[in-house]
Amino acid sequence: MRTLSIGILGCGQIGSAVISLLRRKGGALLRDSGTQFKIVGVTVRNPRKKRAVRIPSALLTTRGDSLVRDPRVNVIVELIGGTQAARKLVLEALRNGKDVVTANKALLAEHGDEIFELAQKRGRKVLFEASVGGGIPVIKALREGLIANRIDSIYSIINGTSNYILSEMSERNLDFKEALRLAQRKGYAEANPSLDIEGVDSAHKLAILVRLAFGGRVPFKEIYSEGISKIRNEDIAFAEEFGYRIKLLAIAKRDRDAIEARVQPTLLPRNHILANVSGSFNAILLRGDEVGEVLFYGKGAGPEPTASAVVSDLVDLAKGSFAPYCRDGRLSSPRRLKIKSISSILSRYYLRFHVLDKPGVLARISSVLGRHRVSISDVIQKERKLGGIVPLILLTHDAPENQLRMAIKEIDRLGIARGGSQVIRIEAEPK
Amino acid sequence: MRTLSIGILGCGQIGSAVISLLRRKGGALLRDSGTQFKIVGVTVRNPRKKRAVRIPSALLTTRGDSLVRDPRVNVIVELIGGTQAARKLVLEALRNGKDVVTANKALLAEHGDEIFELAQKRGRKVLFEASVGGGIPVIKALREGLIANRIDSIYSIINGTSNYILSEMSERNLDFKEALRLAQRKGYAEANPSLDIEGVDSAHKLAILVRLAFGGRVPFKEIYSEGISKIRNEDIAFAEEFGYRIKLLAIAKRDRDAIEARVQPTLLPRNHILANVSGSFNAILLRGDEVGEVLFYGKGAGPEPTASAVVSDLVDLAKGSFAPYCRDGRLSSPRRLKIKSISSILSRYYLRFHVLDKPGVLARISSVLGRHRVSISDVIQKERKLGGIVPLILLTHDAPENQLRMAIKEIDRLGIARGGSQVIRIEAEPK
Repeated sequence: MRTLSIGILGCGQIGSAVISLLRRKGGALLRDSGTQFKIVGVTVRNPRKKRAVRIPSALLTTRGDSLVRDPRVNVIVELIGGTQAARKLVLEALRNGKDVVTANKALLAEHGDEIFELAQKRGRKVLFEASVGGGIPVIKALREGLIANRIDSIYSIINGTSNYILSEMSERNLDFKEALRLAQRKGYAEANPSLDIEGVDSAHKLAILVRLAFGGRVPFKEIYSEGISKIRNEDIAFAEEFGYRIKLLAIAKRDRDAIEARVQPTLLPRNHILANVSGSFNAILLRGDEVGEVLFYGKGAGPEPTASAVVSDLVDLAKGSFAPYCRDGRLSSPRRLKIKSISSILSRYYLRFHVLDKPGVLARISSVLGRHRVSISDVIQKERKLGGIVPLILLTHDAPENQLRMAIKEIDRLGIARGGSQVIRIEAEPK
Repeated sequence: MRTLSIGILGCGQIGSAVISLLRRKGGALLRDSGTQFKIVGVTVRNPRKKRAVRIPSALLTTRGDSLVRDPRVNVIVELIGGTQAARKLVLEALRNGKDVVTANKALLAEHGDEIFELAQKRGRKVLFEASVGGGIPVIKALREGLIANRIDSIYSIINGTSNYILSEMSERNLDFKEALRLAQRKGYAEANPSLDIEGVDSAHKLAILVRLAFGGRVPFKEIYSEGISKIRNEDIAFAEEFGYRIKLLAIAKRDRDAIEARVQPTLLPRNHILANVSGSFNAILLRGDEVGEVLFYGKGAGPEPTASAVVSDLVDLAKGSFAPYCRDGRLSSPRRLKIKSISSILSRYYLRFHVLDKPGVLARISSVLGRHRVSISDVIQKERKLGGIVPLILLTHDAPENQLRMAIKEIDRLGIARGGSQVIRIEAEPK
């Protein structure tokens, strides 16, 4: 019987769930892995606070910097979140010969290169199944199960909060603010929801998927990210009329020597499998050159699913089973992935204007679009109000983003559209 | 650089795809795993036959029995299918100290206990990612990614042929025979399709999932299995009227000290995620006590997806990474799983009769059902034909299968239903 001695940084909901899981299932995990998982220290801010899970006071400490140097510790489980303190502690743990398990997507997205490089130099491992998709074992699938594949694309719903809000807006006709408040009441959204609804959390997770799928350093800041706060009910309703649903997608595709990587509200055909992922669920659709499309779906957050992923990493560490991150046998790659600028991508678009209902308006807008070589595939012009303001919706064929943006700027300058224009990208493939 | 020397039994479509994949991606796999994958022998029936993939004639042999004893071979990849010859060769390979990778679900379902026991005794490994769900890494998820979970249920679509046929019947209003012929023309169904459409193939795969999820010996013959050949278009249409779709499901659930395990056509609510898996795709929905529901979806068959899974097993072998099969650290468990008899399960039912349209028929049928304590939740009685034959459809509440069967037998004896009755189980949970 081996023993793996664990130091846990952070004892919030997830830390408590990990401790509870190891305690409840220690016996089964010992049978499965031949390893006893022993917690030797847990950092907390206030050792006197009441917790859902009882922890012997001898294990509690406020000193993360001591725990990551504790010679008894084999592995540090980092669950404090954020990037500043977490970065320092994780690097220090690696320097002190500890392996690291983390659920921290922001940390890995923003400081992954540094962390993985140090891990490689020190011969340590960093595992992070819990960082994307909660308990869905998609990181393992990318690193091991799909190892024979060149991954060609990722289409994913990886922020449960945003998906919950969009689902509620769509199914119950709530507006964005009402749906957000409901998400907050139900515990799906935090008091400060901006990381979730502005797409930053999705971009963090996408950066991790991109590293594994395409292999190399990921310039996180070059991942374009747009949130859902400007989506209106009418957009959801008009999309529906055209046979689409709106989802916040994190997308990455191989495109010759560069990759596309972006987070954006997206119109998806109603029968697309991702269009049918609702509520706070997550789903990741990968396309491999051998396997074709594979989808992974489940709860993308929550203490128990996240703890399930953390513990699976601990079991892998205990067994010494390990796969590289970079598709070249290394933890850290010298190759920097090239991410295409959003202005150079090609996409279809949903455009919505509020226009004065008078003759010639559609003609003027479409002529501006035409001059910028943006061609229109579908139009809805809503109920005539004789001189009132009416919505005008256009769907375009594939067009370069920069052309489209120039056209929209010019249309906005015409003064015929009130309250600004709405632009949402459309993805039709893969079905 | 290590070398893994591989002997391949069988060079049909899948064998050829494995050889092609190893050849095309040998370089990348070497980078990923530090291992060179070297094919040292391939068994074929006719060495002179033209093949899609070129194999040096020095590698070809008709003698599987020699290949499994060849001292150069580290691992035998068994792709001949069937249970007789495959069983002998796999056992002989293990006796000769080889590890085994197989895609053979029939072999593992029917002789898994014997094979895993020998592997354990000899300290060898048997890997079988390709045996369920083609390239979908669901076996790895069960053995590793979800290791912290007690698996409570499996709901799965694991026979692409049947799902394709049901999808075509539903979407294009083909009858069963037309849809089957189409599946055969498209290469989704074999000339003798009975293993697929009668549910046997699904039952083989379910036996493998059950072994991993619940841990222990699986009495394959006790898995109840019913196919799709008696599903009629009208059943699909009536199910639709009630808000259901019909899918061939392989289901297993924990039920106190026993388990339910069965393959059956099933009415699923239209918005159930499995109801939306169409064509030849597979999907496996697992419920773990920590992670909740997790779904894996993708192409369940085909040479390339299957080869993708076989090669991922080879990489795991090369890396020495390994997880047990039985949730107790062992390959083979002395514990025999207890499978509940189908007659003792509780289910809701869809019942369809063709009855003479005269007063009192519904009353007589429902009174028989009532006497057997089967209570009715919904009824459709179709267009009156004054003395003609009309369909009568009943949905029941939860009822014991044996009560329901007695009631149906009694109704059949009444002589008011023509052409036999149709009974299809309904599953509503999990959503």
